Amino acid sequence: MSLFSKDMRTIDDLFLYHLGGMYYAEQQILDALPRMIAKTASPELKSAFERHVEETRNHVLRIERVFDMYDAQPKAVSSAAINGIIKEANEIAEEISEREVLDAALIGAAQTVEHFEIAHYGTLIAWLRQLGRDGCASVLEMNLQEEKAADQQLTELAESKINAGAVFSA
Amino acid sequence: MSLFSKDMRTIDDLFLYHLGGMYYAEQQILDALPRMIAKTASPELKSAFERHVEETRNHVLRIERVFDMYDAQPKAVSSAAINGIIKEANEIAEEISEREVLDAALIGAAQTVEHFEIAHYGTLIAWLRQLGRDGCASVLEMNLQEEKAADQQLTELAESKINAGAVFSA
Repeated sequence: MSLFSKDMRTIDDLFLYHLGGMYYAEQQILDALPRMIAKTASPELKSAFERHVEETRNHVLRIERVFDMYDAQPKAVSSAAINGIIKEANEIAEEISEREVLDAALIGAAQTVEHFEIAHYGTLIAWLRQLGRDGCASVLEMNLQEEKAADQQLTELAESKINAGAVFSA
Repeated sequence: MSLFSKDMRTIDDLFLYHLGGMYYAEQQILDALPRMIAKTASPELKSAFERHVEETRNHVLRIERVFDMYDAQPKAVSSAAINGIIKEANEIAEEISEREVLDAALIGAAQTVEHFEIAHYGTLIAWLRQLGRDGCASVLEMNLQEEKAADQQLTELAESKINAGAVFSA
């Protein structure tokens, strides 16, 4: 069976399809983050996004490593879900005139992306463990833990600073 | 300022915009769940999705209650993100020929939806608490807790049964 044909029969097929989706998603995120960094007014949020650019580059490399462990060629699979999430984030950002409110919106958008990734990596890792591919699972586990930590950092930044700034900016 | 104009200036504006997005998302999920129920081969997964239909009906009603507490008319705002997530779930489901593998894919898709909602309700609740609107926050907190519980139930079902069935079906 050819990879990414219209006939997925096994969990391995489904896994490689979704891994290609995450390969695409991480690249789209890498493309979107500099635009988010340029829009934010908060130095702390800028730093958080900049750290996440570095992490995201590693996520792409780790996905390539998992493709390699599977003896498969890395292939990005376009994802309507991540395209929709990024499109919506851009649209909302363009409708906001106050910079502090924009920062709150950017955090919300980034956390939607994080949760998209948390859901997908969680599913991929569960499949890998069921398949007995613990080596691949532990590589993706590193991505998952970094996405969870990034999400947590954004929650803390929102609740400790950004949201208050946004509420009192009006 | 008119609600949903292109000029969002305050967190209240942003909150109502996203609340409208969740109002739309919950309705799309209510529309998608019966199709997912029809596709699943597992009685346990069917039951989990059926329970979630009931919960989702309540989520819609709770969102209407929050609009009411805000003295705003409930208005759905089309969400490119949830549209993309559901479109992708449908596309993947159509590419899978084995029913047990399809069940594993359906769980993955449903968990992507849950995480989308967890991210959004989390953000909305954080804004409400910052705004001092604890009454509205506690209504949406009920939705958030049910989404988290649904996600957890799907993880348990996947890991205890569905994934093993999918791996051994090939």
